[in-house]
Amino acid sequence: MDPDAVAKAFVEHYYSTFDANRANLAGLYQDASMLTFEGQKIQGTRQIVAKLTSLPFEQCKHIISTVDSQPSGPAGGMLVFVSGNLQLAGEQHALKFSQMFHLMPTPQGSFYVYNDIFRLNYA
Amino acid sequence: MDPDAVAKAFVEHYYSTFDANRANLAGLYQDASMLTFEGQKIQGTRQIVAKLTSLPFEQCKHIISTVDSQPSGPAGGMLVFVSGNLQLAGEQHALKFSQMFHLMPTPQGSFYVYNDIFRLNYA
Repeated sequence: MDPDAVAKAFVEHYYSTFDANRANLAGLYQDASMLTFEGQKIQGTRQIVAKLTSLPFEQCKHIISTVDSQPSGPAGGMLVFVSGNLQLAGEQHALKFSQMFHLMPTPQGSFYVYNDIFRLNYA
Repeated sequence: MDPDAVAKAFVEHYYSTFDANRANLAGLYQDASMLTFEGQKIQGTRQIVAKLTSLPFEQCKHIISTVDSQPSGPAGGMLVFVSGNLQLAGEQHALKFSQMFHLMPTPQGSFYVYNDIFRLNYA
């Protein structure tokens, strides 16, 4: 499968899951997974999902502007770099964000998120 | 050495070199290196440096806002995620940018840039 198509499918799945029910993102992480969220470092599925579900907004919608991807090396990983807008319920202005994922293959032929770094850009 | 300190030192070196003389960035790339610049995919030291040196501005200054880093896996690589402002000579307003690097170790104990993805955020 075309790596750019894999990246695009991952991004659509990730953000539609985030916007519908963040707790369901648990299936995309493993215990070795790392998240750096606005500078805060978190490791492990349970800890990452606890962070994402405790963010101080109930409803949000990610609007994706760009998706770039590159293979990360011989282990079969893939880097995915996203920019877009985050619209919070009840807020007039959307927040710009950038996020990068390092996806690693699973034995089942799928991918999980090994690295995840998120930053708001305060437009 | 602390990975965050390595990332910070790399970022300072990279952007001060970029702002002083982009051609000198050649030493940070190898033939397997990939750059995606505003969606355009480029591979190889010579091609990457040709792209960077042909950008349509003479002088610029990168002002770094955030630097995040994570280890990328057992091969000893490191992911570096940067956000900041790009001030072009003669332009009143700076452009926001985000950039990610995947640094891989060299046999000499240094790092080279294996992956590089750059995006302007059009603030």
